[in-house]
Amino acid sequence: MARVTILGAGAMGSALATPLRANGHQVALWGTWFDDHFLAELADGGPHPGTKVALAEGTEVFTSDRIADALAGSDAVIVAVASGGVLEVSRLAAAHLAHRPTLGLVSKGFHQRADGSIALMPEAVREAIEDSGAVVVAIGGPCKANEVAAGRFTATAFASTDGGQAAGRLADVMRTPDYRPNVSDDEAGLEVCAPLKNVYAIALGFADGLEQSTGEPWHNLKSAIFAKASQEMGLVAEALGGRVETAFGLPGVGDLEVTGLSGRNKVYGARIGAGESAPEALERMREAGQTVEGVAASGLAETLVTTQLQSIADRLTLLAAIRAVLDGAADPLTVIRQAL
Amino acid sequence: MARVTILGAGAMGSALATPLRANGHQVALWGTWFDDHFLAELADGGPHPGTKVALAEGTEVFTSDRIADALAGSDAVIVAVASGGVLEVSRLAAAHLAHRPTLGLVSKGFHQRADGSIALMPEAVREAIEDSGAVVVAIGGPCKANEVAAGRFTATAFASTDGGQAAGRLADVMRTPDYRPNVSDDEAGLEVCAPLKNVYAIALGFADGLEQSTGEPWHNLKSAIFAKASQEMGLVAEALGGRVETAFGLPGVGDLEVTGLSGRNKVYGARIGAGESAPEALERMREAGQTVEGVAASGLAETLVTTQLQSIADRLTLLAAIRAVLDGAADPLTVIRQAL
Repeated sequence: MARVTILGAGAMGSALATPLRANGHQVALWGTWFDDHFLAELADGGPHPGTKVALAEGTEVFTSDRIADALAGSDAVIVAVASGGVLEVSRLAAAHLAHRPTLGLVSKGFHQRADGSIALMPEAVREAIEDSGAVVVAIGGPCKANEVAAGRFTATAFASTDGGQAAGRLADVMRTPDYRPNVSDDEAGLEVCAPLKNVYAIALGFADGLEQSTGEPWHNLKSAIFAKASQEMGLVAEALGGRVETAFGLPGVGDLEVTGLSGRNKVYGARIGAGESAPEALERMREAGQTVEGVAASGLAETLVTTQLQSIADRLTLLAAIRAVLDGAADPLTVIRQAL
Repeated sequence: MARVTILGAGAMGSALATPLRANGHQVALWGTWFDDHFLAELADGGPHPGTKVALAEGTEVFTSDRIADALAGSDAVIVAVASGGVLEVSRLAAAHLAHRPTLGLVSKGFHQRADGSIALMPEAVREAIEDSGAVVVAIGGPCKANEVAAGRFTATAFASTDGGQAAGRLADVMRTPDYRPNVSDDEAGLEVCAPLKNVYAIALGFADGLEQSTGEPWHNLKSAIFAKASQEMGLVAEALGGRVETAFGLPGVGDLEVTGLSGRNKVYGARIGAGESAPEALERMREAGQTVEGVAASGLAETLVTTQLQSIADRLTLLAAIRAVLDGAADPLTVIRQAL
């Protein structure tokens, strides 16, 4: 039995208590200041506001002011806060990581440093926690939180740069018959796919939107977008020192599949495909309280390409087309077709 | 301008007249004895019974007794008959191919030779037409016939074993802004993916069926199946002399995406996922006049693995699990989970 602390009591953080408790571990769930208002009800067995599923029985819940207690003596720490809060929470936690636990990183996204350069999330976290000594394990793959919380089958990807050793140890802690980490050493490949799939899901949604507005299926287009998106994720993964095969596994095509089935990025793309302009569609999403992660990711991806990936820039035609559409290109279908 | 003959007036054969006529080619559409009954109406501008779309204007239509006239002087011949009829039609055509046209092969499937061994379709066709001199170009990728017929965007894959030269020439004949052949030399990779994606689509449908029967999404499962299916297609492609990357392009993940969006294989899998036994589900499909191509393909794939792919057999766990489910395994979810 291990003691595992989950930082972030949002949908994904709370959901991960399910496999951990199924394995009989001691689980501490720490909520940020954004979570505090629902923690008491969650601790009392109420449904989580995000997943609608009750927290796994026996999970200890800690409010935001008790991070030291939550982290005390943890063998592993899972960081599962929203992307915007990862570094702040990591810095908060760093002071309590002297016992060098494994640090599983669920939060994803490109991070723009103060100097404008783009870092993958584990690099940014390592920079934030400096020499706390925690070993970072990147966690990705197709994983909807409500399904994990409810204990339905989920295959995920764990990667660490020490040849996958730390990833393997954390996988052993978390693995159940229904929560299945696949272990590798390809942190870069995994981290590249996570934000990029949100960008490409906008284009998949675009095909769905055409179907809504024309009353005819555009499945051939959607499939061509899917294949091109997979290839571009592979190109970027390789260019950043990762492996093409990671893009063709759970973190890439797997996660793109789940993101294309539902989710805000797809819905946003569908609005554009159905005829709304990109800014208009984004405004509608905002009104409904829906953040479209792929929009910010597309901008950071463009910066990444411009500053660090010039050698493959001319092959990332779909990424460029999506940017053009989000910037308000007059005829999105033509722009996307030309990219395929 | 070229003269192109399409053999087979089914949904796909008829649809391909659209890009060919858009390019101003002379197009001869020959129907088999199964098509004869609707050819007169099709020639008169009526909708095709399969695609519900009218034939491209200016297409000449030939009944089954006029194959010699249909093939006379053709620069390229497209074979687009149902898998079961490919070899018979190829043999019929062979006598009229002395002028060595390019032979585009749209029909797909594993072919079992009289000695029990499995051939990919272009090999089987080459054996059937012997030294007629026609050069075969394999045509695959995510391509729903009704969308091609209506002129909606479609990206396909053309491959030939002469380094892709014949594929390139045929692609130049057929390419329009909305019908986009991608050229390669990987015939084996392309041909492996086409029947296998039908098998794997059954498993994707299984996840959809669980959603119907439980009222809860199983997107994580579906995505894990998608990623594993992609990897297994890559393994088989490579083992048969093709390339992994073909499985991760239009013929593999692209075609799996379109097949998973709709189609009979998916519907059949969904029935099993929703609780019907595999034989019961197949019987229901038969009653509705729906052939499930993936069922026959799964049996031939099993033979292929047993006789020619023993070195990778233990890695094709999802393929084996699907076979077990179709053979009536008591608990399909457990069988599929264990394969992932």
